[in-house]
Amino acid sequence: MAKSPEEEHPIKAFGWAARDTSGVLSPFNFSRRATGEKDVQFKIFYCGICHTDLHFLKNEWGVTRYPIVPGHEIVGVVTEVGTKVEKFKIGDKVGVGCLVGSCKKCDNCSNDLENYCPKQIMTYGHPYHDGTMTYGGYSDLMVVDEHFAVRWPENLSMEAAPLLCAGITTYSPLKYFGLDKPGMHIGVVGLGGLGHMAVKFAKAFGANVTVISTSTGKKDEALQHLGADKFLLSNNPEQIQGAMNTLDGIIDTVSAVHPLLPLIGMLKPHGKLVMVGAVAQPLEVPVFPLLIMGRKLIAGSCIGGMKETQEMLDFAAKHNITPDVEVVAMDYVNTALDRLLKSDVKYRFVLDIGKTMNSV
Amino acid sequence: MAKSPEEEHPIKAFGWAARDTSGVLSPFNFSRRATGEKDVQFKIFYCGICHTDLHFLKNEWGVTRYPIVPGHEIVGVVTEVGTKVEKFKIGDKVGVGCLVGSCKKCDNCSNDLENYCPKQIMTYGHPYHDGTMTYGGYSDLMVVDEHFAVRWPENLSMEAAPLLCAGITTYSPLKYFGLDKPGMHIGVVGLGGLGHMAVKFAKAFGANVTVISTSTGKKDEALQHLGADKFLLSNNPEQIQGAMNTLDGIIDTVSAVHPLLPLIGMLKPHGKLVMVGAVAQPLEVPVFPLLIMGRKLIAGSCIGGMKETQEMLDFAAKHNITPDVEVVAMDYVNTALDRLLKSDVKYRFVLDIGKTMNSV
Repeated sequence: MAKSPEEEHPIKAFGWAARDTSGVLSPFNFSRRATGEKDVQFKIFYCGICHTDLHFLKNEWGVTRYPIVPGHEIVGVVTEVGTKVEKFKIGDKVGVGCLVGSCKKCDNCSNDLENYCPKQIMTYGHPYHDGTMTYGGYSDLMVVDEHFAVRWPENLSMEAAPLLCAGITTYSPLKYFGLDKPGMHIGVVGLGGLGHMAVKFAKAFGANVTVISTSTGKKDEALQHLGADKFLLSNNPEQIQGAMNTLDGIIDTVSAVHPLLPLIGMLKPHGKLVMVGAVAQPLEVPVFPLLIMGRKLIAGSCIGGMKETQEMLDFAAKHNITPDVEVVAMDYVNTALDRLLKSDVKYRFVLDIGKTMNSV
Repeated sequence: MAKSPEEEHPIKAFGWAARDTSGVLSPFNFSRRATGEKDVQFKIFYCGICHTDLHFLKNEWGVTRYPIVPGHEIVGVVTEVGTKVEKFKIGDKVGVGCLVGSCKKCDNCSNDLENYCPKQIMTYGHPYHDGTMTYGGYSDLMVVDEHFAVRWPENLSMEAAPLLCAGITTYSPLKYFGLDKPGMHIGVVGLGGLGHMAVKFAKAFGANVTVISTSTGKKDEALQHLGADKFLLSNNPEQIQGAMNTLDGIIDTVSAVHPLLPLIGMLKPHGKLVMVGAVAQPLEVPVFPLLIMGRKLIAGSCIGGMKETQEMLDFAAKHNITPDVEVVAMDYVNTALDRLLKSDVKYRFVLDIGKTMNSV
């Protein structure tokens, strides 16, 4: 018979878990594996709350196994290293994002694209190599293969944990699809956790940035606070019509069903629409008038590989790019999740694990 | 009052035109402009019959103005050159494809992408710079701006006229989307005028080619005649399932509505689905499971620029790549169009204008 989460490993750990589809989190005693020769153990200081956590907590994608400890935007300080660890020493700041494992052999792994490895292991709610379930960053400590930890730059606030998911998810497609050239006109659809990071990275690359949103309330935010150059209401046909054929690329962060026709229309010929919002339903794409006549493309992109995640963190540190966060205590997590569901956050909650995890 | 087609220009010309939405062609006396200083006049020897001609003849896209003389796969021999013509002399073989004009100033024109210029002028049924209608290659002679004529390689049969549309339409996306690397696995959907050229070019680039078709009858053709490596029936779920995650790219030539989900599924991560068939209706695209999780893309592509068209012809001549054609007499044109509508041709009709135009 399988051991309980509390007994299956030697290292005692403590976190918050959901036990059923209510998604409500409560304190949870479990365990972590002993530090293997290529592992680092670290104390968690901060963990971001990602919208994906909500989907998993409530089993909205049908794959959740309870109990589940979410959290994949994790920053901490190394407390122990395995005998063969090369990248880290005790006291180093480290980050862990969405992945803690992959096959390390396939074409994707060989090309620093662990995030597309068919055998990738997610940071929480996924069976690890040893068959035990992975538990995420809403917890006091973690043990991770050093390959899946990144070095946290010294001058980067540890509260910037959302770079590890929201950051890399927007940075990677801007780079891969060549949308990182100075002077380009880049659209960002949706101004939430992902969208606000897309604006910041695109601006740092030297782009002229247009934010496209359904909400007039986002206009001042976009222009005055985030430094976007232009704001368009996606449900205002005149504004959209006036922007036809003006954008080199669009990062679309919206996860609800929405029309792609106006977005593709706003692209110049050879323009690129990159979807990073997890839209569950198929979307309708106009093939002839826009894709073919303008050689435009629609693509998707999913987080980033370990090498690129490190590059993104170093870039963020150098250019002082951090997510706008509201830091909250661990016991505020259920309220934070309720508020996130209502988009009542600018733009990411971050749990102050270091100071508040043990207060329960 | 506007002059009649027969009187508006000084050079007498003769061709076949449709006069109404029946699309039936009949002999037509019209005129061509005098050879301008940058123009070449040429006698037409061959003209391919493209499926697009059918759409225009019957006004299926709602933009046809009658009378219309179709034909945009045109090969002939120069009979007169303007005083400032640099590329051609009398007696040279030339080709004209889908375009006879563009603005020559925009970003696209500056980058040898006249085919994406918003002011491009189509070879037939389109107002030219002087306001007169353009007439295509189902005619005895033509006058064209030398920029929109390509040099026809000496060792390339003039019957290979369909290279000028079907050829470049498949060559260009293979190049632009990086699907021209030896050893790649390339899928070709639909085995008609475009599809059979896609197979030939992909094979010439060194690809392993899979033909995907709804028709079992195409299997022998694909494998034995065209040299494809693999054949899949698109309506056989087992065959499709067995090919999941195997292709680097797909050229989709089908212009009818068809499901994209299995095609995207057959792409490896980072794979590219390029649509070149003029699908009128929007198609459904699964965003999350395939585009995002595999960083795949769907794109379109439309013919090619003049520079690339020349490059394609030179490549075809060097590698002995020609379309499979059925050469027919001019007065067979209506029968040929009927047969084309039933896909009863392998793979392109070509009108023998040189020998049969004046026989009426």
